Amino acid sequence: MIARIDHIGIAVQSISQALAFFEQALGIKLERIESEEGGRTQVAFLPVGASDVELVEPQDAESGLAKFLAKRGEGVHHICFEVDDIEAALARLKEHGAQLIDETPRSNAKGQRYAFIHPKSAHGVLIELYEYGKAT
Amino acid sequence: MIARIDHIGIAVQSISQALAFFEQALGIKLERIESEEGGRTQVAFLPVGASDVELVEPQDAESGLAKFLAKRGEGVHHICFEVDDIEAALARLKEHGAQLIDETPRSNAKGQRYAFIHPKSAHGVLIELYEYGKAT
Repeated sequence: MIARIDHIGIAVQSISQALAFFEQALGIKLERIESEEGGRTQVAFLPVGASDVELVEPQDAESGLAKFLAKRGEGVHHICFEVDDIEAALARLKEHGAQLIDETPRSNAKGQRYAFIHPKSAHGVLIELYEYGKAT
Repeated sequence: MIARIDHIGIAVQSISQALAFFEQALGIKLERIESEEGGRTQVAFLPVGASDVELVEPQDAESGLAKFLAKRGEGVHHICFEVDDIEAALARLKEHGAQLIDETPRSNAKGQRYAFIHPKSAHGVLIELYEYGKAT
């Protein structure tokens, strides 16, 4: 059901400063930087094996990500797992009493579906589930 | 240089309680539980693709892990990357001014070498580097 770790999202104040560490010092190569959530977040993608390290930088001081940074500082923001069937995954979580941030999946600009599980249910970890599109 | 995410270490108060979420609700299967660091930590290994989720539970109230839990609560404790050459990786980090917890690698019971990078240098992320043994 859970195929792999899709990415680890790391909240940073500045992608360019964070790249000095993650790319130059640690040696993980930057693939691309994208604007997400209608420009509210910048995301740098650094592939590592079958997963990505994603450096996420808020562009909007009112976003959840900006508030996370103000409260907790930089660090791991969320872990994203790829699932083959997001509806089934959410149903299983609900059945076991997990608290979901998204009861039904959201869709991104590519039409791929994702949902977040509340860290209260997930032992302090903000977990994202992501389903890559199937041919229909 | 960085081959893959070896594991994500999640600090938990109780492995058995955490398994109710990670195994039963989320659906990641437990492979094994091991005692590490001379009995100071219990670790549950839950493979996900090419990586593991590791649930780490302190057995010693004076350990760094116990203090992390007391201060921050449950959540992501560290990210471990597999490297092919840990000496080269540490040299590169030093060259770029990164603060290392382990200037030289430690060895585990299997003779495999690992080292931690201080979260102050790594944008709030405690990073472990791990080199699997080479045939010599």
